[in-house]
Parts: sequence; C-alpha cells; structure tokens
Amino acid sequence: MEKKIAVILGDGIGPEVTNQSLKVLNAIAERFEHHFEYTYGLMGADAIDKTGSPLPDETLAICLESDAILFGAIGDPKYDNDPTAKVRPEQGLLKLRKSLGLFANIRPVATFPSLHHLSPLKSDRLEDVDFVVYRELTGGIYFGEKKVDAAYTEASDLCSYNKSEIERISHHAFKATQQRKKHLTLVDKANVLETSRLWRKVVQEVAKQYPDVQVDYLFVDNAAMQLIVNPKQFDVMLTENMFGDILSDEASVITGSLGMLPSASVGATTALFEPIHGSYPQAAGKDIANPVGSILSTAMLLDHLGLFTEASLVRDAVAWTLESKFVTKDIDPINYYFTSTIGDLVSEYV
Amino acid sequence: MEKKIAVILGDGIGPEVTNQSLKVLNAIAERFEHHFEYTYGLMGADAIDKTGSPLPDETLAICLESDAILFGAIGDPKYDNDPTAKVRPEQGLLKLRKSLGLFANIRPVATFPSLHHLSPLKSDRLEDVDFVVYRELTGGIYFGEKKVDAAYTEASDLCSYNKSEIERISHHAFKATQQRKKHLTLVDKANVLETSRLWRKVVQEVAKQYPDVQVDYLFVDNAAMQLIVNPKQFDVMLTENMFGDILSDEASVITGSLGMLPSASVGATTALFEPIHGSYPQAAGKDIANPVGSILSTAMLLDHLGLFTEASLVRDAVAWTLESKFVTKDIDPINYYFTSTIGDLVSEYV
Ligand SMILES: CC(C)[C@H](C(=O)O)[C@@H](O)C(=O)O
Ligand SMILES: CC(C)[C@H](C(=O)O)[C@@H](O)C(=O)O
Repeated sequence: MEKKIAVILGDGIGPEVTNQSLKVLNAIAERFEHHFEYTYGLMGADAIDKTGSPLPDETLAICLESDAILFGAIGDPKYDNDPTAKVRPEQGLLKLRKSLGLFANIRPVATFPSLHHLSPLKSDRLEDVDFVVYRELTGGIYFGEKKVDAAYTEASDLCSYNKSEIERISHHAFKATQQRKKHLTLVDKANVLETSRLWRKVVQEVAKQYPDVQVDYLFVDNAAMQLIVNPKQFDVMLTENMFGDILSDEASVITGSLGMLPSASVGATTALFEPIHGSYPQAAGKDIANPVGSILSTAMLLDHLGLFTEASLVRDAVAWTLESKFVTKDIDPINYYFTSTIGDLVSEYV
Repeated sequence: MEKKIAVILGDGIGPEVTNQSLKVLNAIAERFEHHFEYTYGLMGADAIDKTGSPLPDETLAICLESDAILFGAIGDPKYDNDPTAKVRPEQGLLKLRKSLGLFANIRPVATFPSLHHLSPLKSDRLEDVDFVVYRELTGGIYFGEKKVDAAYTEASDLCSYNKSEIERISHHAFKATQQRKKHLTLVDKANVLETSRLWRKVVQEVAKQYPDVQVDYLFVDNAAMQLIVNPKQFDVMLTENMFGDILSDEASVITGSLGMLPSASVGATTALFEPIHGSYPQAAGKDIANPVGSILSTAMLLDHLGLFTEASLVRDAVAWTLESKFVTKDIDPINYYFTSTIGDLVSEYV
C-alpha cells in the first residue's frame, strides 16, 4: 500500500518523540511491504522562527495532499506572557484544524494497571477506567468573532454553534459508542448557555437514530467532578470545543501517564494524529521524553488508513515494552531508558 | 449588634441544611447578645412552583435590605432535560447575583486530615492543600448576549469582559493573597481567547500594586490537570466566571468532603453565603444531608459582619464534631448522625 503522510515535528519535545514514531512506521512499512511517503511541514513556534508565520501556506498544502498527518507538539513559553503579541504558535494549529475541517478530536483514556501507582487517584477509582472523549474541534468560542478595543479596555469572544456542526460529530460519537459499551454522556452547561441548549436538543434528536445507545446529560461543572470521583462511569463523553479542552486534559492525568496518551483529530478528508502532551520545553533535546503517546497516535493513524493488523502490532509492541519495564524517566525515575531507545525497541519488536 | 439576614432555603436539601445554620446563628445570638432578624425569600424551583418566577421581586427586595444572605441550594432535575424551557430555577440565582452585584465568588478549599481516606486522591497529594478560588461571578459568558433562531438551528453566547470588572475582583484576590501565602495564580486561556488576553493584561497591571505577591499564569486546561496532580501548589486561584465554575467544582471534590465546603459571593453592598454542594434531590427530606457546608458558610457570613470571634467559635464547633466523629452518612455510612443532630450538637457547643 502507498500512503502519503505529512509530518510536522513542531516545538519542544515534538521532534524527538515524532522521530520515534517514524522509526516505527518504517519498521511497519518494511515488514508489511507498504510505502509511506513522508513530507515535512513547519508549524508553531518553530515555523514562526523560520518563516514568520505559525502555519506557512506550504505546510497547509502538504497536509491537504496527504492521507494523514503525524504531528509532534506546539507551544513556546516565550509567547505566553505577552497578551498583545500578534503572532502566536497556537494560531498555526487552530488554523490547520479549521482549514482541514478536523472537527472531531478523539482521545481514548485508559489506565495501564502496571502504572496505577503513578496516578494521583487511588487505585480503586482506576480499575476498569476505559473511555473516549469526543471533543468538537472547529467551532465554539475558539473560532467565533473576537473583539478588543484599541485602548484594551474591553474584549469579547463569541461562542456559536449550528445544528450541522453538532450533528456531524454526534453521529461520529454515537457510532463509536455502538462499538463500545453503548453509553454516551453529553457534557454541556444547558442551565446557563444557549449553545448548550442547542447541543442538548440536537443530541436528543440524533439519539433517536441510535436506540441501542443509552444517553446521559451532565453539566460541565459536575462532569469535572465525576471524572475524578468515579471515572469508570464513562464510556463515550461528547462535548463542545472549550469544555472538551478542559475535560480531556483533566481526564488524561487521572491515568498518571500523560506521556502515553494518543489523540486523533478527524475531518471529512484527512486526519491528524498527535500525543496529547504539550511541547514540554524543559525536556526538549534531552532524549528523556516519553515517545509512547506519539507511537500510540501512530497506531491510531494506521487504523485510520485501514491498516488494522499493523495498528494492533504497534500496540502489542508498546505493551511489551511496558511489561519488560522499558520505560522513560517519567514512568520510572531510577531505572529508565532514553526516548530513542524506546523507539528502537518498539521498531525492533515490530 | 443588630443585623438583618435574608434567608433563602431553596430547593432539594437546601431547607434542611440551612435550618441547621439558623440553629447555630440563634445560639451565637444568644451567647453574644446579638439580634439577627431573619426575613425569608423564595428562589429557584421552589419559587417557580409557588409564584411562577425563579426570583420573585419580593425576594430581591428582601435581599437588597439585608446585611447578608444565607442561601441553601438550587436546582431540580425536572427542568434540566428540556432545552427549550423558558423558565428555569438557575435563572433566579443568576439574576440575584447580577442584581446585587455579587461579583466575587470565594471558595476556600482545605482538606481535613481525618477525612483524607474519603478523597479520590492519594493521601500524599492532599497534605498541605489549602487554597482559595476567586471566581468572577457577574460577567463573562454567563451574562453576555444570548441568541437562538426560531427554528433552533443556530445559537450563540457572547463572552465579554471589561477592564473594571477584572480590576475589581483582582484587587479583592490580591488583598486576600497578601494575608495568605502571597502566591496568586491567574487561570485563563490567553493562547486562544481575546477576553483571556485582557484578563492577563489587566492582572499584570494590578500586580504592580502588590509587589509582595508572586503571580503565576496557567492555561485553564493545564489548571484542570494541576488541581489533581499537585493541588498544594495553589494559594489563591483567580479566574473568570465559566472557568471558575468548572475548576472550583473540580477543586472541591479533591477534598473528598464536598458536603463540608462553604462559599461566599461578595458584592459592594451585600454578600451571599451558601454551601458549594447542589440541591441533591435524592437526599431531600431524609435528614441525611451534611449541614457542615452550610454551617461553615455561616461562619463566613459572621466574618463578613465583622463578628470574627463568633465565626471562630462556629469553626471550632465544627472541628469538635469532626473529632468526636459526629458526622453524617456521606462521611461515615455506618456510624452516622442525622442532619438535625449535627445542627443541634454544633449549636450546643456554641
Ligand atoms: C494549544 C491549544 C490551542 C490547544 C487547544 O486549546 O485546543 C491544546 O490545548 C489542545 O488541546 O490541543
Ligand atoms: C446553578 C448554576 C447556574 C451555578 C453556576 O453555574 O454558576 C452553579 O453551578 C454554581 O457554581 O453556583
């Protein structure tokens, strides 16, 4: 099989973790006689430094022509504390999501029993935790009109949604739920927000087409509590962009292994895969970052390309490194292996 | 001392927990020879049932004339799943906050060492957790223009802030920080939202007037993680309305004792005090709800009236019930005491 993969290394630890995924993809290509054609693009702080733009047109063109995109991480603290900066790394990622129509951000959250001791939660809360967050990614307050007056005394952000934006991701989420434990939870703030009431109404309608799925509704403040108190109650959590940003990050740390979690951002024509961790600049260049989040994102990428056997093999390889205690410093601060070693080991297993 | 206190019992377990606080206030009045004049008002589902309105004008008038307001809880599930309902209980509370200008919601989060076993977090994460959330309460997306078209295909909520709204609560929060560990964390989403960039800019300016306070900035998604991973890093957390709703609820459950946490909503002329828990309809009328959240809110109310000795005594009384294992069912499901018994015990101690 021939496939075009756009590769965006990005900022901080992005390059070093993504390079491990490329080793794994090469091993898969060799073993299964596929041909993956990689084209590299710039985005984020890296792109600003080199081109002045957080998302050069060339990167967008490369992504539009690819079957899938493998991405590292974005962000550089030097931009964060200047509220008036006109150009910021994150604009690149937001523009890419919008331009490619990557409307569904999918984040599986499962705990690795051998890593329960790393979780901030007590072990009894962690057993059987296995859910997926479906976050709407191209609408809401992220993309509504933004205003600020010249004197910087007043600012606003508009949160808006229309029915078809909600329907689109809802169908995705309901279909995924049917393949899982058949329990979907919509998270909103319908007691306050008009957009949330629209979400609730549309999801109630869509639900009629999936009579085998049980649907629950939770207010976002309650959801933030339930994720900690009793995370195993969730199967598929569906929510809008801003709430999804907050809740999926909260969900990711309950596992105690943030560095191991993957994500997919899916659109009608292409999809982007990235670890959920950030650019973690303090660790950049030290060969200590955990590449498993990126490698498991690569497994999701292979699934997306229809290469299910290959995806399973990558997951088996990761499970084997974990069982064999081949882990990075974040998992075992004493007996640890380097980022690049984990990449080599997973590739060799494959 | 003569003080006028408006009492709003509200929905669900609101009446039974608030009645315990009234017992305690009466005991304080007797012991210290104060006179508290109570006036009762309706709000929430209770008010809708009795008057058709979630906040009758009479209740607002009572509150405007009072030195402080003691409130129970709001909400009834029968309104939650009808997105098109025109009248909802929460409208009452939102209107009250806006009309009285209660712009700062203050929620202290401290763990009780004897209750660490109830927390979903491991005990090592709980030691020395002692922080306060300052949530802006009368601005942002809660009160911006809301739109929905007649066909219910498109909806929007406007999030807006101006400089003076941000300055007002920031000064409160900085002053509180000076009395504590001198560390303030602003939580925003300045990498995406224009309003957040305004918050960051204004807080950076206000900070110059409080050179002894160390100021940190966290994105809201990261804050949702840090609250679980390492809650003891926080001293005062300052944030806007919607983020504060989510984060303060998340923060409250890490203690394992949601039923014991108080809150204050403060404005220029009056202030409202309520437990942070909700109306918990399943428990209503069973005399099993934990009244400590309401009783500790009453201690905050006494502080607000300048009655510091009285407030301390109430806190001592609560600590004594805890040490003596006089606790409700949520704390000890086997050897538990009734709501009304705890109220009696705290009053007798006083
Ligand atoms: C970098 C930032 C703009 C982004 C977001 O808020 O969507 C990130 O937090 C994420 O969740 O992918
Ligand atoms: C009841 C609801 C409108 C309210 C809010 O969202 O502000 C509640 O969750 C709170 O935090 O006091």
